[in-house]
Amino acid sequence: MEFTNLEKAEILARALPYIREYNNKIVVIKYGGSAMISEQMKETMMSDIVMLSLIGIKVVLVHGGGPEITAVLEKMGKKSRFANGLRVTDRETAEVVQMVLAGKINKDLVRLICASGGSAVGLCGLDAGMIKVSKKTDAGDLGFVGDIESVDVKVITDVLDKGYIPVISTVGAGEDGVYNINADAAAARLSSELHAHKLVLMTDVRGLLQDKDDENSLITVVRVSDVPALKNKGIIAGGMIPKIDCCVEAVRRGVKRTHIIDGRIPHAILMEMLSDEGIGTMFY
Amino acid sequence: MEFTNLEKAEILARALPYIREYNNKIVVIKYGGSAMISEQMKETMMSDIVMLSLIGIKVVLVHGGGPEITAVLEKMGKKSRFANGLRVTDRETAEVVQMVLAGKINKDLVRLICASGGSAVGLCGLDAGMIKVSKKTDAGDLGFVGDIESVDVKVITDVLDKGYIPVISTVGAGEDGVYNINADAAAARLSSELHAHKLVLMTDVRGLLQDKDDENSLITVVRVSDVPALKNKGIIAGGMIPKIDCCVEAVRRGVKRTHIIDGRIPHAILMEMLSDEGIGTMFY
Amino acid sequence: MEFTNLEKAEILARALPYIREYNNKIVVIKYGGSAMISEQMKETMMSDIVMLSLIGIKVVLVHGGGPEITAVLEKMGKKSRFANGLRVTDRETAEVVQMVLAGKINKDLVRLICASGGSAVGLCGLDAGMIKVSKKTDAGDLGFVGDIESVDVKVITDVLDKGYIPVISTVGAGEDGVYNINADAAAARLSSELHAHKLVLMTDVRGLLQDKDDENSLITVVRVSDVPALKNKGIIAGGMIPKIDCCVEAVRRGVKRTHIIDGRIPHAILMEMLSDEGIGTMFY
Amino acid sequence: MEFTNLEKAEILARALPYIREYNNKIVVIKYGGSAMISEQMKETMMSDIVMLSLIGIKVVLVHGGGPEITAVLEKMGKKSRFANGLRVTDRETAEVVQMVLAGKINKDLVRLICASGGSAVGLCGLDAGMIKVSKKTDAGDLGFVGDIESVDVKVITDVLDKGYIPVISTVGAGEDGVYNINADAAAARLSSELHAHKLVLMTDVRGLLQDKDDENSLITVVRVSDVPALKNKGIIAGGMIPKIDCCVEAVRRGVKRTHIIDGRIPHAILMEMLSDEGIGTMFY
Amino acid sequence: MEFTNLEKAEILARALPYIREYNNKIVVIKYGGSAMISEQMKETMMSDIVMLSLIGIKVVLVHGGGPEITAVLEKMGKKSRFANGLRVTDRETAEVVQMVLAGKINKDLVRLICASGGSAVGLCGLDAGMIKVSKKTDAGDLGFVGDIESVDVKVITDVLDKGYIPVISTVGAGEDGVYNINADAAAARLSSELHAHKLVLMTDVRGLLQDKDDENSLITVVRVSDVPALKNKGIIAGGMIPKIDCCVEAVRRGVKRTHIIDGRIPHAILMEMLSDEGIGTMFY
Amino acid sequence: MEFTNLEKAEILARALPYIREYNNKIVVIKYGGSAMISEQMKETMMSDIVMLSLIGIKVVLVHGGGPEITAVLEKMGKKSRFANGLRVTDRETAEVVQMVLAGKINKDLVRLICASGGSAVGLCGLDAGMIKVSKKTDAGDLGFVGDIESVDVKVITDVLDKGYIPVISTVGAGEDGVYNINADAAAARLSSELHAHKLVLMTDVRGLLQDKDDENSLITVVRVSDVPALKNKGIIAGGMIPKIDCCVEAVRRGVKRTHIIDGRIPHAILMEMLSDEGIGTMFY
Repeated sequence: MEFTNLEKAEILARALPYIREYNNKIVVIKYGGSAMISEQMKETMMSDIVMLSLIGIKVVLVHGGGPEITAVLEKMGKKSRFANGLRVTDRETAEVVQMVLAGKINKDLVRLICASGGSAVGLCGLDAGMIKVSKKTDAGDLGFVGDIESVDVKVITDVLDKGYIPVISTVGAGEDGVYNINADAAAARLSSELHAHKLVLMTDVRGLLQDKDDENSLITVVRVSDVPALKNKGIIAGGMIPKIDCCVEAVRRGVKRTHIIDGRIPHAILMEMLSDEGIGTMFY
Repeated sequence: MEFTNLEKAEILARALPYIREYNNKIVVIKYGGSAMISEQMKETMMSDIVMLSLIGIKVVLVHGGGPEITAVLEKMGKKSRFANGLRVTDRETAEVVQMVLAGKINKDLVRLICASGGSAVGLCGLDAGMIKVSKKTDAGDLGFVGDIESVDVKVITDVLDKGYIPVISTVGAGEDGVYNINADAAAARLSSELHAHKLVLMTDVRGLLQDKDDENSLITVVRVSDVPALKNKGIIAGGMIPKIDCCVEAVRRGVKRTHIIDGRIPHAILMEMLSDEGIGTMFY
Repeated sequence: MEFTNLEKAEILARALPYIREYNNKIVVIKYGGSAMISEQMKETMMSDIVMLSLIGIKVVLVHGGGPEITAVLEKMGKKSRFANGLRVTDRETAEVVQMVLAGKINKDLVRLICASGGSAVGLCGLDAGMIKVSKKTDAGDLGFVGDIESVDVKVITDVLDKGYIPVISTVGAGEDGVYNINADAAAARLSSELHAHKLVLMTDVRGLLQDKDDENSLITVVRVSDVPALKNKGIIAGGMIPKIDCCVEAVRRGVKRTHIIDGRIPHAILMEMLSDEGIGTMFY
Repeated sequence: MEFTNLEKAEILARALPYIREYNNKIVVIKYGGSAMISEQMKETMMSDIVMLSLIGIKVVLVHGGGPEITAVLEKMGKKSRFANGLRVTDRETAEVVQMVLAGKINKDLVRLICASGGSAVGLCGLDAGMIKVSKKTDAGDLGFVGDIESVDVKVITDVLDKGYIPVISTVGAGEDGVYNINADAAAARLSSELHAHKLVLMTDVRGLLQDKDDENSLITVVRVSDVPALKNKGIIAGGMIPKIDCCVEAVRRGVKRTHIIDGRIPHAILMEMLSDEGIGTMFY
Repeated sequence: MEFTNLEKAEILARALPYIREYNNKIVVIKYGGSAMISEQMKETMMSDIVMLSLIGIKVVLVHGGGPEITAVLEKMGKKSRFANGLRVTDRETAEVVQMVLAGKINKDLVRLICASGGSAVGLCGLDAGMIKVSKKTDAGDLGFVGDIESVDVKVITDVLDKGYIPVISTVGAGEDGVYNINADAAAARLSSELHAHKLVLMTDVRGLLQDKDDENSLITVVRVSDVPALKNKGIIAGGMIPKIDCCVEAVRRGVKRTHIIDGRIPHAILMEMLSDEGIGTMFY
Repeated sequence: MEFTNLEKAEILARALPYIREYNNKIVVIKYGGSAMISEQMKETMMSDIVMLSLIGIKVVLVHGGGPEITAVLEKMGKKSRFANGLRVTDRETAEVVQMVLAGKINKDLVRLICASGGSAVGLCGLDAGMIKVSKKTDAGDLGFVGDIESVDVKVITDVLDKGYIPVISTVGAGEDGVYNINADAAAARLSSELHAHKLVLMTDVRGLLQDKDDENSLITVVRVSDVPALKNKGIIAGGMIPKIDCCVEAVRRGVKRTHIIDGRIPHAILMEMLSDEGIGTMFY
């Protein structure tokens, strides 16, 4: 793409109201899924994160990593089993989850942020005892899969205070070991505990679609009180249910706006945050 | 101009290296001349200043105001006289200069910045005894026209510290009254005392032209050691001489780069600072 | 006047209780009218302000400037019109008001303070969006004459924090331009928003007189609840009404004591604040 | 072991000079090898670390993890190869090293510290760009095995400032990927950059032995200038050479004292730091 | 006493939970009576205080000094008279009390703390107007014996803030002179005003005894609500009554736990605070 | 004395240059001798100290107390012996000196300052190990009379930082006990270590007299280089020698000006510091 200087300046100037709005505010971004697979996409995304950070937004990056976990387990000759979309996690699997999330994906994102001129610190729910977990009991015995019991965000705000971008892996300490936690749910909970201005879930769909087979049928804005009706009508269905439940939960706990946007689109997060249209679906 | 979201995002993303470079750095911008006359241009410019401030640049805005001074003097039935391009300034004129610069133009710029969502404080060389002046003696008797004797930038850094954009009128206290000071020279001196990263003079020419009648003959980069030769060749001539002398002086005193850019171009300052080409002429 | 060293020391020693009382407290002083006309009187007054500041009082100086505005308008061939004692202010007049107050009188006071060894910063209601104004509607159409809508004193306390004496011109931003505001009213409002310990209005009368023609009939103390009765009796009348209304308003909004004192007396402010008798009339 | 209250108090009282000496000082502890294998020993060690931290010592914990890396590689069907005692590290191995060190061992130590009532943050050389690495060239082609090029300890001191115990994995970013770094060497370099008071290498030997087969022949103190002679005599030999070279290097770069102590002894670190005899070998 | 290194380390390690519990908490220790007479015991005690301070406890040391006062009075040919166990204090005696407590005992303790490597500042109730006193009226006319009227602990917290151990003599200013105050009562009041975690009265008895003649009949824990019954039974009697009333009062005003321990036992305060059994009697 | 308001104000106004000069500067005042004996004079003096403190001067008060020490020793049946004007000090006498200075005189001055509305903290050379002393050897065996070995003024600046007036007794710790130190010498040393702006010795003479029997022959200014000549001429003689040696020493160590003034004159310190003439003799 080629632009004239004036075009560039004009676009930058138009971003002013958004930069002003988010100045010094905390924004939690959940990043994961297919948007995280290609190295090129990760680099673009981390560069965008640095951009948001430099223009005064306090970005907290929460990431998942299912596919990489599966890949490492496979290499170790261990087959991944899922029940209701959740990974069945024995102790050995839990160790692999911790290792891949907190050691591989997390520190790789940290490295990419630093390579783009930002400065990040990689944390997980174990650091400073950030996330306490209890065994998940509402979905059958999944082993070391946990629900968040309590969260202490002090280490995150300390890291923000010192000027770093916190990157967070969603494992946490339970009574009898380390537990895997759903990253969307963790991002929602952290965003409310941090009194975040916004929660953005970067996924691999366009957002909530009126007709799930038609990408042009995007619903751009949903009031959380309309969610039950949309479930009844089957518009919110399948994998969207837990994601949208996270959004609703975050709004209920005081986060002003949550968004589901398509992480496969280059610069999706910049479009969402710094332009007048936004993309994806917003819940408020 | 219409752009797709992706185009907008792409342009924002490309600004990252510049935002990174200037982060938390002081940039002195001298604003004046024709670029300051239309209300529309002033609004755009102040909005750009707010933008630069929000993305982490410590902007110090120095302004002139010759035409408005002339206009007020005229209303008072006083004719402006110039010698060597400098206003002959009797005591009454000096009072008008102070009044128009520090009371009218300065506070109007402050108001426009606040209207664009920034927060500015209007200062002049008298505030906190910032600028001490001695009578100019190298250009005949011009009355209350002064050269800067000494500068104490503490009030500027205090104002920056508290998060405001300082807007500065260039009058200063001499032994026997208030003196008018050349705004370009003041901007140059302030930029060196503030250890500024950059000084930008916004003028009403494209920059330094190889052929002064051909706007397409812009010289984009000049080493300060080449300035004498350019003067000899007559390329640097007329009104450009004092401006470029200011640039040279600032570079000599430690400011890395100084720029002469065309303030008549909308968003000129954004183009200069946030794009890969830059506009106008750079001295280093 | 000649005194022995012991007399001097004795007097200084007697000031101790007052110095103690005001230590680190905010005192708003409204300065204007005839007391401001002679250069000698201004110098003495600014020197006293520096004194108060050095002994630990946080002085906020609010000034008016009617006569100088009238003089400049005259030079411009514009006649001043008043209705109910208020200047009828068209847009051009409003510009002159801003220019004279914020550019001339304000910065001259700042300069005198610095010359006396203090350090001042000159602000007006436009700086950092300090004073928002709405068009005054209770006194006929006066044009750009405003009532204070809201005040944000953060810029004043920031300036005090950094050790400067804030000097404030009473113009403010309205929806459609800059408005002139009554300086007494502005001082009253600022003193309450700043939780000032004291408000002093320096005028050109002795204070409230029992018999307006007898300077010896000074009423030294007035309870604000007695003001209506004093109005009924005609003791508070004419130009004293708005001044005393400001005092009453300030006391109602939490300022402990307000004073009307005679600014024509040399060192009036020192006498008022550092001696056991005080001068003028106090409202509590 | 049973003690009377008085015995306990007596021992605590005798620790006073050591507590005083180390108060507010940085001490770098390298922990690894067999001392790290049993869960019980790790818990005791982490509890001792919390103790040192609570009595005012700024502990920085650097860890290794060779055996666990080998174990994970084995599970993945990859055999570990060593050359000159250094792991030959292809890209896939480097990823496993990062994953096991920064994701598994590091966060497990963090978790144990938190469980003992301390508060730790797990970092690696990638966080905030802490360790830059260049390919090791002095020992044949080992692949992604690096020498430290430069270190920026700001993230460590920031973490200490906020009251956390930093736990550090020794991987770092090179030009073409993540590199494995020798943990002893990294601890030595970090201790000098942090101006540490002391460096302690916890190993699985008693210290430097006069006769390597006689645990009772411990040499308790070595001047670094005597090291070459000890090498010549063959007293410093085999695996002790690189360890002692690290100690010498740290002392040369300004760390006052370095120690090699036996991490297999329970509470070895408390004995070393809080008692009058010390254990192991000290280099100064 | 001789211990192995391991024994020493084991004991230090066992102190961890107590060090953790008291970290950064204020503990008020009242020191006096026979425990203060021997120079050796004072040195040991001050060394223990330094220990507690170094491991992060904010120790406030309150001291008495009856025997030394009596000795100095005697030297001056003045006989001490007591009524109900309280010193009858004429003005001259009050001066001696102030002189001995604040000048001799206090500064001697300060000196011993400094000699043990701590840093102390000696204060009395007169410093910064800390303790205001009214004449005691509930025990006959005792002269300058006072009850605490009000306490301003700011000077104590300022001294703690700057890292010193405050050592406090219990005299205070009354309307007509300086008054002697009971040191136990002052310690109790200071501990509640300081929101102390713990108050320890170091006395010359084992604690509260079931049978006052049998040192083995120590009652280790007393609920404050049980105190009246214990008084009725005569178990709390004689000199123990005022001491225990102080404990009860402190607990009522929010101090979690108060202790009466035997200051004659070497390292009594370390045993009490850093071991699992504690000594003496605890009230909660 | 009666003055008009205007006279009072005039005098206050004339103090401005002095207030400005001393603003935020440290001034060490040595107070002692006959000027300290009457309760009335002490009250006036302490009230003046509060005044100086409130107008922004950082006063450090150093006091002596010979007469009170002698009085207490007498009461104890101990006769004071002097050699070369210095008190022969056995161990018991040293204890009395400490007790009277640090316990009686010091805390009484503290109490008077607080009663005048100031806030003081009483320190001696033992607090925080402020003054280390070695046995005086240049004047025969005087017992526990010391010369200052080293001074650590941190506790003084900490106390000033927190807003208190430090009041200092001149005893200090030697190897074998507490030593008495000459108060003039201590004040001189402290003033240089504190980088004081001024040292004032309040004595019971007018200053240095040309003719010691004629109070009107006061020498107002002495250059320190002229002191040897003045000694030769016998103008500096007797008790003035050590005092003036202290002044010379302080000037040599960087204190700009030192003064010997007559503490018997009411408000002597205010006259000296806040008026245009000054009293006594100045050394520079």
